Amino acid sequence: MKRAVVLLSGGLDSATVLGFVCHEGFEIIALTFRYGQRHAVEIARAQDLALKWGVFAHLIVDIPDSLFAASALIAANRVEVPPGEEHSAKSPIPITYVPARNMLFLSYGVACAESYDAEAVFIGANVLDYSGYPDCRGEFLEAFEKAAGLGTKCGVEGKPIRIIAPLLHLTKAEIIRMGASLGVDYSLTHSCYSPDEEGRACGRCDSCRIRRKGFEEAGIQDPTLYAGIEK
Amino acid sequence: MKRAVVLLSGGLDSATVLGFVCHEGFEIIALTFRYGQRHAVEIARAQDLALKWGVFAHLIVDIPDSLFAASALIAANRVEVPPGEEHSAKSPIPITYVPARNMLFLSYGVACAESYDAEAVFIGANVLDYSGYPDCRGEFLEAFEKAAGLGTKCGVEGKPIRIIAPLLHLTKAEIIRMGASLGVDYSLTHSCYSPDEEGRACGRCDSCRIRRKGFEEAGIQDPTLYAGIEK
Repeated sequence: MKRAVVLLSGGLDSATVLGFVCHEGFEIIALTFRYGQRHAVEIARAQDLALKWGVFAHLIVDIPDSLFAASALIAANRVEVPPGEEHSAKSPIPITYVPARNMLFLSYGVACAESYDAEAVFIGANVLDYSGYPDCRGEFLEAFEKAAGLGTKCGVEGKPIRIIAPLLHLTKAEIIRMGASLGVDYSLTHSCYSPDEEGRACGRCDSCRIRRKGFEEAGIQDPTLYAGIEK
Repeated sequence: MKRAVVLLSGGLDSATVLGFVCHEGFEIIALTFRYGQRHAVEIARAQDLALKWGVFAHLIVDIPDSLFAASALIAANRVEVPPGEEHSAKSPIPITYVPARNMLFLSYGVACAESYDAEAVFIGANVLDYSGYPDCRGEFLEAFEKAAGLGTKCGVEGKPIRIIAPLLHLTKAEIIRMGASLGVDYSLTHSCYSPDEEGRACGRCDSCRIRRKGFEEAGIQDPTLYAGIEK
């Protein structure tokens, strides 16, 4: 049986990728990261999703949050995520950017793939509805794949690990339609960067706004309970 | 003051790099990894070295050893490191190869560098006296640096983090001479892949043999106590 690593955050995009890779007939090793993110509730969602889809193995990796200074997405940094506007006047890259995050996650993915004979690492990166993160772009993913081919035994021996981002050029609405057709249960996913203490989505941060708009445009009912926002 | 990240294993090469980067006038953040390696004694050596050279910060990162199946260098895998011959007939890459290790370590380095405004990540990779690891080659390091430039905020904004391997084309004897001239205390370093319970070097594994030969060729006294080998 062919095998793949799936980077599974517990968000909408990676849940869709998980459904897609399952339907493609891969045996799956899911990788989730605990890195001090404000929305650590997404890790429990990743566990629910991994269980639901019957993955072969699910590895949850701890990354010290002290590695990521300055990012507003790291709870310990105490930088607030402003509702609906994460961009400063100085940069098109939002303050929720986490330094080299996808590079680090993909490196774990490649190490895991080579260790367990998986042929590809799947990631839910997306350039359209994303929020300006440089490490979600195709040119980064291609350069990373090339580096992984040169820096691994399997790559040197002619079987490089592929980095696949099946959602890269889809809109959020297209992603949601695709997931719905695959049977992805979006009530098990979490997108909000500023959840309340009970883990409920705020409905107002960039991530929530993109999610809500996606469901609207897809014409599909959003199963999310947003704190303080009436349906 | 200019700042750099140094990947510090506690071995001979990274100790030399640490001395070199100190002499170049950088403020240093040292990064060390605990990944289930047989020779975890090297982590204590890295701490000694970091203290000796007065680094600005020293971060020790835990990586789950379950990530690295099959490698003989991971203690939990119970694959023996054969004395003096780590290569199988099937591959020029030794059984002590650890999947995507330098890619993962360098990704941590880039995340740390971007978080703490360091301009470069220094690594003790070397292609001459090394043992056939694909992730120690210049072509991998260049491809990785390119990917890091495309996948980080600082790279997109015109200040990419450089990946620098100052020992890349030096022989072990040249490295040792360089370190000696910089005041590197090699008695604080550890190279052996198969140390005994007290952390003493075996003197016979590939790593020990390369080290011993290096000191001989450099004409410098090797301060290492090898278990069972007379001086």
